[in-house]
Amino acid sequence: MTILDGKILADLVQQRVQQEVEELKIRTGKVPGLTVVIAGNDPASQIYVRGKNKTAEKLGIESRVLELDASVSSSELLDTISRLNMDGDVHGILVQMPLPDHLDEWEILDHIDPAKDVDRFHPVNLGMLTLQRTDIYPCTPAGILETLDHYKIDLSGTHAVVLGRSFIVGKPMAAMLTNRNATVTLCHSRTRDLPSILKQADIIVAAIGKPGFVTADMVKDGVVLVDVGINRLDKKEDVLALCDESQIKKFEKKGYGITGDIHKETFAKSSYYTPVPGGIGAMTVAMLMQNTLRLFKKQLHLD
Amino acid sequence: MTILDGKILADLVQQRVQQEVEELKIRTGKVPGLTVVIAGNDPASQIYVRGKNKTAEKLGIESRVLELDASVSSSELLDTISRLNMDGDVHGILVQMPLPDHLDEWEILDHIDPAKDVDRFHPVNLGMLTLQRTDIYPCTPAGILETLDHYKIDLSGTHAVVLGRSFIVGKPMAAMLTNRNATVTLCHSRTRDLPSILKQADIIVAAIGKPGFVTADMVKDGVVLVDVGINRLDKKEDVLALCDESQIKKFEKKGYGITGDIHKETFAKSSYYTPVPGGIGAMTVAMLMQNTLRLFKKQLHLD
Repeated sequence: MTILDGKILADLVQQRVQQEVEELKIRTGKVPGLTVVIAGNDPASQIYVRGKNKTAEKLGIESRVLELDASVSSSELLDTISRLNMDGDVHGILVQMPLPDHLDEWEILDHIDPAKDVDRFHPVNLGMLTLQRTDIYPCTPAGILETLDHYKIDLSGTHAVVLGRSFIVGKPMAAMLTNRNATVTLCHSRTRDLPSILKQADIIVAAIGKPGFVTADMVKDGVVLVDVGINRLDKKEDVLALCDESQIKKFEKKGYGITGDIHKETFAKSSYYTPVPGGIGAMTVAMLMQNTLRLFKKQLHLD
Repeated sequence: MTILDGKILADLVQQRVQQEVEELKIRTGKVPGLTVVIAGNDPASQIYVRGKNKTAEKLGIESRVLELDASVSSSELLDTISRLNMDGDVHGILVQMPLPDHLDEWEILDHIDPAKDVDRFHPVNLGMLTLQRTDIYPCTPAGILETLDHYKIDLSGTHAVVLGRSFIVGKPMAAMLTNRNATVTLCHSRTRDLPSILKQADIIVAAIGKPGFVTADMVKDGVVLVDVGINRLDKKEDVLALCDESQIKKFEKKGYGITGDIHKETFAKSSYYTPVPGGIGAMTVAMLMQNTLRLFKKQLHLD
């Protein structure tokens, strides 16, 4: 049972991005530009955005954060995006979700120039992904594929079970695994007899937000476990039952612990697994940086 | 075991389309316009195109066929599509595949205005389909869903196995079934131990072009069988082994018979099945007509 270490790999990816950004700066005099648009004061979103901004700057990416008021109108936000679409120094645009309730998320996301759509949530980019016509993927499934590839886990012919059908993880992940010649079963809340489907899986990607949902009795020996869940637990009994040692210690200090969708006792049966935290979550920001670099290269015809 | 009769249902759909076209003509003075572009002299394509054209005219759809020389250049074909994109009387544009070898299919298909893309092969439309943001689907999977719905086959919670991952059938079908709350396994040439996966299926959609591939021992009792394969057999022993009575008779006259991807002896185990011919194939042109009507209504803001 090998830990798929997202922190180490994220560092590697970021070093690679940083190096290429430097080389391209010398060659072209330009650097990738990433603008993150945030509307409102959701504290979790602000933490994420600050993290992204800091990482981008560390790697030499020109990073901007546009903070808009929670009351921003749809047309103001669309105008902001239009300006970013036309700005030659901006190569990646990210609108932080969730948006305030009065805004239509899809209206906003659809308005981002697909060539600058760094989150890859625009429908044309999801279509291109399904058609295997792009190598730029939404950050979370991109991080998963990068991890599996880094550890040389052969996907072709495997049976992969994806738990959760969100457009952020489950749907693009299923399409990407199909394109890598896995046989994919996409499961969700309506799936009947999930344990018997999970039991067949060579690879499980769990992205449902249910702490400790996948238990040891549901999986076969040697399974590869990819855990996308990031669940915060505040009750001591839950933390003791579901979190690993590091998070139990954290609970003593901070009053909460983090765990994934896969029960910690399940890992013993796996050949490889991603821990939570320190697994896929750690990769996501690194993939955002890689996406920004790739969009920059495409826009400047450098690849 | 009930036959899902594609001919009867296609007639129903076409009557419904015809009636609505008439009503909308009275209301708006306009009728849906469909233009089919064909390049070269592929005999099978010419038969398809003529069939589509004839059906469209019967339903009151203004149908045009643009026949281009096999040597048409990419830029000429793109110009043709640009003109159709701008033509207010054209609501649906279909470029008949396959194109001559020197043309890049995706370059051509990407150029069709997504709002007029009646085949729904444009990546933005595939993305919208995956995101459950459109009710206009590629014709073959649209015909399958229409058939299952017409016969009130409940999809929610079923395990559907889709055989074949083409962008024309398998991929959109898988996404559509997921969106209808089925648990979908998408299988293909690299799938290992396919029989054990098929054996679990409540619904099988076979779209691989291998005559009689799915045999009775691979499926469970009561399965719903949807056969997309249209395979032409020229050898008597194959026709006798794989085709039904009507096609065996046809072979005596015409020297060939048609069969699907599902072996004829498999149907006895099913609760419902689509025959070949007379099943899904018969529905495809009807769905093209329905798509043309729906695009027309959207463009005229009639829905």
